[in-house]
Amino acid sequence: MTMTESNRMRNGVDVTTLFATLDAVKAQPEAAQFQFRVKNRWVSGTHSMGTISSFYGVGTEQARDKSFVVEADHPEVLVGNDKAPTPAEHLLAALAACLTAGIGNISAARGVELTEVESTIEGDIDLNGILGLSDEVRNGFDNIRVNFKIRGNAPEEKLREIVEQSRARSAVFDVLTNGTNVSVSADATSA
Amino acid sequence: MTMTESNRMRNGVDVTTLFATLDAVKAQPEAAQFQFRVKNRWVSGTHSMGTISSFYGVGTEQARDKSFVVEADHPEVLVGNDKAPTPAEHLLAALAACLTAGIGNISAARGVELTEVESTIEGDIDLNGILGLSDEVRNGFDNIRVNFKIRGNAPEEKLREIVEQSRARSAVFDVLTNGTNVSVSADATSA
Repeated sequence: MTMTESNRMRNGVDVTTLFATLDAVKAQPEAAQFQFRVKNRWVSGTHSMGTISSFYGVGTEQARDKSFVVEADHPEVLVGNDKAPTPAEHLLAALAACLTAGIGNISAARGVELTEVESTIEGDIDLNGILGLSDEVRNGFDNIRVNFKIRGNAPEEKLREIVEQSRARSAVFDVLTNGTNVSVSADATSA
Repeated sequence: MTMTESNRMRNGVDVTTLFATLDAVKAQPEAAQFQFRVKNRWVSGTHSMGTISSFYGVGTEQARDKSFVVEADHPEVLVGNDKAPTPAEHLLAALAACLTAGIGNISAARGVELTEVESTIEGDIDLNGILGLSDEVRNGFDNIRVNFKIRGNAPEEKLREIVEQSRARSAVFDVLTNGTNVSVSADATSA
């Protein structure tokens, strides 16, 4: 089969490259070992700046030609200066973005043209936990709800299946629902 | 005790307000019920934009006078256009920022002046999971490592205790290690 340029791209996804990538990883599973990294620098109070650039994957260091900066702070009501979203909001943003990227890719692979994908994410948190005022309250979100609005040239059921498949294969959803191993160490010097 | 301006602020944290906030929540624990939100809009392929503005807390809607935008994409090696960090990198950035904000606040509360806080976060992920090529590989990070460099006017042991207390009271660390409830729903219409 010869693909023309018009059916090679769908939803902004190069479908030929998508399937070629899947075939390449099938042939060489170790290419899928990735390491992502962030460097964070404290600025003042609750304000910090994360820098994201290189990562490891496909058997080699992957140097980006740029760095991304992600800032975080607390709002004034939580004793910050509201320079940037809270870390908890960044966590919700990561979840939305992961599910949405999956919807873009999966739709493209299944031949569905999307016209609109929007989502609203809400997370409920009782700050008596992080404030150390109750040992019965957890530190993090009790519940997170994600609601998608999805429009495309497929029956409702097929669009729902795309959202479900994205959920079933989301890296961020997995970590947020199942947890993972996190180690924290410190190089501390009096200065 | 009368506090002067110079000992009221420490590490950019208004210590008087920090303790007043703790006292206020002690007196009225329901003030600590918060809801954070993100709205996400798919742009193209794996690229999406999250918007963060209002939240609920201290018994009322909290309208910010601005919106923050958080973009995400995949790099080219993962069939994206590298317009922004990956969702997985945003997750690591959220963790670093949460632990760092905690270090800022806890140091201020304990009378420690910080001179430098930096951290490096690494997350290992085998993409055979999200690519659907192995049912034995999880979708998310297998391991995340956070290493802090912390400098301040306290003995090493006290600086280490501050990092440990931040870990013990971090909202993002809790969710990433213990998991939480996440529901995903979809309003799907053929269009």
